[in-house]
Amino acid sequence: MTFLTAQTSLAKRLHARLDALMPEPAGAQASVIEAMRYAVMGGGKRVRPFLLVETARMLGHADEGALTAGAALECLHTYSLVHDDLPCMDDDDMRRGRATVHKAFDEMTAVLAGDGLLTLAFELMARDEVHPDPAVRIALVSDLAKASGSLGMIGGQVMDMTVSETDRSEKTITDLQAMKTGALIEFACVAGARLAGADANTTDIMRAYAQDLGLAFQIKDDILDAEGDAEIMGKAARKDNALGKATFVSILGLEAAREKANKLGEHAKARLAQFGHEAEILRDTVDFILSRDK
Amino acid sequence: MTFLTAQTSLAKRLHARLDALMPEPAGAQASVIEAMRYAVMGGGKRVRPFLLVETARMLGHADEGALTAGAALECLHTYSLVHDDLPCMDDDDMRRGRATVHKAFDEMTAVLAGDGLLTLAFELMARDEVHPDPAVRIALVSDLAKASGSLGMIGGQVMDMTVSETDRSEKTITDLQAMKTGALIEFACVAGARLAGADANTTDIMRAYAQDLGLAFQIKDDILDAEGDAEIMGKAARKDNALGKATFVSILGLEAAREKANKLGEHAKARLAQFGHEAEILRDTVDFILSRDK
Repeated sequence: MTFLTAQTSLAKRLHARLDALMPEPAGAQASVIEAMRYAVMGGGKRVRPFLLVETARMLGHADEGALTAGAALECLHTYSLVHDDLPCMDDDDMRRGRATVHKAFDEMTAVLAGDGLLTLAFELMARDEVHPDPAVRIALVSDLAKASGSLGMIGGQVMDMTVSETDRSEKTITDLQAMKTGALIEFACVAGARLAGADANTTDIMRAYAQDLGLAFQIKDDILDAEGDAEIMGKAARKDNALGKATFVSILGLEAAREKANKLGEHAKARLAQFGHEAEILRDTVDFILSRDK
Repeated sequence: MTFLTAQTSLAKRLHARLDALMPEPAGAQASVIEAMRYAVMGGGKRVRPFLLVETARMLGHADEGALTAGAALECLHTYSLVHDDLPCMDDDDMRRGRATVHKAFDEMTAVLAGDGLLTLAFELMARDEVHPDPAVRIALVSDLAKASGSLGMIGGQVMDMTVSETDRSEKTITDLQAMKTGALIEFACVAGARLAGADANTTDIMRAYAQDLGLAFQIKDDILDAEGDAEIMGKAARKDNALGKATFVSILGLEAAREKANKLGEHAKARLAQFGHEAEILRDTVDFILSRDK
């Protein structure tokens, strides 16, 4: 089975699970629940829940609870997109080929829908069905809060909004991306290992894999932004370029950025050397991330 | 010991605990951490953490862990104030006698500081120090997420922003306030009972006390808004009135609203009938809530 087969299957299962787990639009708060569903059910690559569920499966934990943990993670990731798209932040009109939440609804609804998704992420992660051991669930809640908080994902967004162009070195944007997108990708793989009851050594291997993959993912995003086609990507391309924003491409050049991404991809795959056939999909994931056109 | 002595002592301990628990402003994300601290350390009555810690203490659990749970709850409450004050929601300039976060900083920082506080609330609630049993901590996380989510506090805010004036009956605003402010007050008392290992019956008593107290609190807020002094209150008074917004006062009239609040206060105190001297402070809390001038 390749990445694409596994990912398509996961995306379908995740869609059904999210549909079952999310509240139904009803009553006076229907608008915000509709906006939460609009944002989450709109698709996307589902990379984070995929990595969580696939890591758990590879380590022998093919359990339905991982899918609920993946749904929680996708809610958290989606909230960050909804808030980052707001006029006071990136001010984006399009996301995943559709109007952003504040465009399709309004700004108030977008703020509250983001808040609702962030809160729902923790509600879902705390559910019994995620794992029978409450100690595992509370560790997931704690890890998720740290990965997404002011010293993780939110901190990365602040950096991205405030660090001046002249201060953007390769080191700065590496640190920034490690927080802004890397932290949740790392959480995904570590959470999969936790659910599978992996030992510390295996968990560290999955963390290292995720760190290499996460940075490769971001560099590929910058490459796509520099040369990509907005129609394929479903969002504004060449945006960073138009804003004069430093990216891995503007700092390293297109060729060196591509080389760096490929090298990180090789590293990520090498991390999985101790695994055999069971790691095939996670190895293929690396190739997919680097060859995608959106 | 009366409410005021107990509350002053709790507010001081909570301030120190929050100061120790919150991240330090440093690095590129310093601005958002400063804004989080500005919002949380600015004071306020600390009613929710007080109810949590005092319920736990009354039920025999005078543990430092309850203070950390209270700090988590105050972070969550504060995030809701920061986001509710935003221009796209209530558009308030003043809060607790100072500029609101988006006025003292900017809108982007206010959105992210709110997100950071919401996330921090769950990080703190998951900490070992809150309670040695992870099953208790995961129950607190789950309860907190439900109380503050789209079917709780956020849902109440949506209702408050969208329900038309003609649809505001006494029943509507009672339901609205049960979600918008009642859910977290109820959480506070139930969490205190959970930390103390209370049985289902005692937990239900504390829930009922919190429901009566929460509604009385809200009616008193409306009374203060109708007749209060903005200088004492530290925020805009007569705001609901100026906006033509239906309140318990505009629907019931000032006298009937006062009567209703007092009756709810009597009910709340009656809930505690099975307790003796140890419930003195929670009884006095009711009287304080009803006699406060801000």
